[in-house]
Amino acid sequence: MVQLDFKKGDGILPAIAQDYKSGKVLMLAYMNDEAYQLTLQTGEAHYWSRTRGEIWHKGETSGNIQVVREILVDCDHDAILLKVEQVGGAACHLGYESCFHNKIDKHGGETTIGERIFNPERIYKK
Amino acid sequence: MVQLDFKKGDGILPAIAQDYKSGKVLMLAYMNDEAYQLTLQTGEAHYWSRTRGEIWHKGETSGNIQVVREILVDCDHDAILLKVEQVGGAACHLGYESCFHNKIDKHGGETTIGERIFNPERIYKK
Repeated sequence: MVQLDFKKGDGILPAIAQDYKSGKVLMLAYMNDEAYQLTLQTGEAHYWSRTRGEIWHKGETSGNIQVVREILVDCDHDAILLKVEQVGGAACHLGYESCFHNKIDKHGGETTIGERIFNPERIYKK
Repeated sequence: MVQLDFKKGDGILPAIAQDYKSGKVLMLAYMNDEAYQLTLQTGEAHYWSRTRGEIWHKGETSGNIQVVREILVDCDHDAILLKVEQVGGAACHLGYESCFHNKIDKHGGETTIGERIFNPERIYKK
């Protein structure tokens, strides 16, 4: 059994979600041991929400769950890489395919790239 | 100018390095503001080493620097994605292309995947 190192991050570690087909990096979130175990058991990505302080079954509200195709761990056992099938095509709660939709130029300026796949106001009924 | 959120991580945030051509995720490390500024200024990846407590110019010892092709930031401005050209072909200090070279099966067992590109004992003269 893999022993993951949750200590360095005070009980959590970063988990990268990557589209298993395109290789696009979709998001970075965190897992505690419970989220990791739930991910293994269900085959769907579970994270630990730092802001809400609770387990977060990704896609629970929006329906955009992440079906886990492969789990990788790095050499220090303190970071996880999930290769996922992103249901609905958008991982970002703002409606973009990827949360990494802001490009930084060499002067530190920011430009939004990528197009919205859904309108978050409709999905989350804000 | 982009305002990155270093607060949530007590002055650091996670930075993913991804091969700009293949899309392979190479490693996850951390940046503080200084490492971020050095990365912008030099075009080569700089991180904050949590274990050594110092700025880490990736490849300084091994020669395997990361030439930054693109910098992306996520929707919460608390995680960075670097698309890099990995000089020497290996990002991992153990000699593998990627630090994520351990696959976890659904029972939590671990298998090493990928082949070593260099012998770390020769590079680091341990």
